[in-house]
Amino acid sequence: MKEIRALLFDVFGTVVDWRTSLIQDFSQWGAPRFPNADWPGLIDAWRAAYIPSMNRVRHGGRRWANLDTLHRESLTDLAPNFGLPTLADPDLTHLVQGWHRLNPWPDSVPGLTRLKRRFIIAPLSNGNLSLLLNMAKHAALPWDTIFAADLFHHYKPDAETYLGAASLLNLPPHQILMTAAHNADLQAAHALGLRTAFIPRPTEYGPNQTRDLTRENTCDFVAQDIEHLAAQLSAK
Amino acid sequence: MKEIRALLFDVFGTVVDWRTSLIQDFSQWGAPRFPNADWPGLIDAWRAAYIPSMNRVRHGGRRWANLDTLHRESLTDLAPNFGLPTLADPDLTHLVQGWHRLNPWPDSVPGLTRLKRRFIIAPLSNGNLSLLLNMAKHAALPWDTIFAADLFHHYKPDAETYLGAASLLNLPPHQILMTAAHNADLQAAHALGLRTAFIPRPTEYGPNQTRDLTRENTCDFVAQDIEHLAAQLSAK
Repeated sequence: MKEIRALLFDVFGTVVDWRTSLIQDFSQWGAPRFPNADWPGLIDAWRAAYIPSMNRVRHGGRRWANLDTLHRESLTDLAPNFGLPTLADPDLTHLVQGWHRLNPWPDSVPGLTRLKRRFIIAPLSNGNLSLLLNMAKHAALPWDTIFAADLFHHYKPDAETYLGAASLLNLPPHQILMTAAHNADLQAAHALGLRTAFIPRPTEYGPNQTRDLTRENTCDFVAQDIEHLAAQLSAK
Repeated sequence: MKEIRALLFDVFGTVVDWRTSLIQDFSQWGAPRFPNADWPGLIDAWRAAYIPSMNRVRHGGRRWANLDTLHRESLTDLAPNFGLPTLADPDLTHLVQGWHRLNPWPDSVPGLTRLKRRFIIAPLSNGNLSLLLNMAKHAALPWDTIFAADLFHHYKPDAETYLGAASLLNLPPHQILMTAAHNADLQAAHALGLRTAFIPRPTEYGPNQTRDLTRENTCDFVAQDIEHLAAQLSAK
């Protein structure tokens, strides 16, 4: 593994705990004005709309639209089902930008800080660049640079994202380690020749999570969390 | 100026001292094998080839080629004029990658560190992303993300670079401050609605520099160096 030069990270779920962050953020913000809102229900439904909304761009011939745009459309559709009135523009913006204010898992910042001393570290995320940049400032994520879907006008698991990052890094895929809590992401990266690391996040989707509890593919590394990955990669 | 959210920096000359860095690097590396080389002469001629080589991409209908590629071509042409033999591939690579190993001016890292606490900070450079990333690791430049010409397949002063960064940042141009030691860069940014800051680097081109000694356009800020700019922007 001496030849690994750069580590790419999935972000939503792998580095940040979107579900707990959004429930706390929205419950506190919404309590005075929206006492009937079912925030956990809305957030789970919103996340469930994520892959279908990207797939309309990936396969449906829809022109490029970034994740903020997709999030806003899904939220507008879903809000009435979860005890919310028709939301005004500033409220929609506040909620959509909740995805810019997510908190890291406890191991993320210390693990990334160790890894940064030895490797290039960057997200490779379906988030847009401004979302990932705001999140990095909010959560103190010490990225060297940011690879966002809007650099490529493609969403993972399209090959253009993994290979686009490799091209910009000027590295062959086998010198890049893709880290994610999601098997589908790693399967796509592995098929393109990247190294892979699986980190389970068994409460990402809440207490009753059934998916992505264990790795389902060949992986170069399986680690309990990002600090454990740093230890396996001998990053002090 | 309260509305400024992001600071973009020209890099070669503004943040790093390419001339002194390359003279030191190449003189030391080349002494045993290339005692007749005129390194300052080669480096000055190489830098003089920089804008014409980009202009062939900008105006000459040449397909996109990144700065590493342009640097390599210029070096191959120029080396025989400065006491060097025909260079083997590893030697060409070492010299081209000298541009990845440039040292910062003394104020750059402390100034950027202060500015990062209050603003988004990123290069907007004609360098390729891998060059800027390697340079950031080498010189400890604390960028939040990297805007490189190969994200846009355009070189400054093409509008696509400034407006491409603004689009990815999801900010209107007037919330972005472009900082450079070069009047032409700031003139282009100003014409597109960005704020501008001029920082003179009177020895960038050596002791006999005649260009870019003072600002030639309207600028929102003129600062002695990046720490002085941080002071003007009240970044602690």
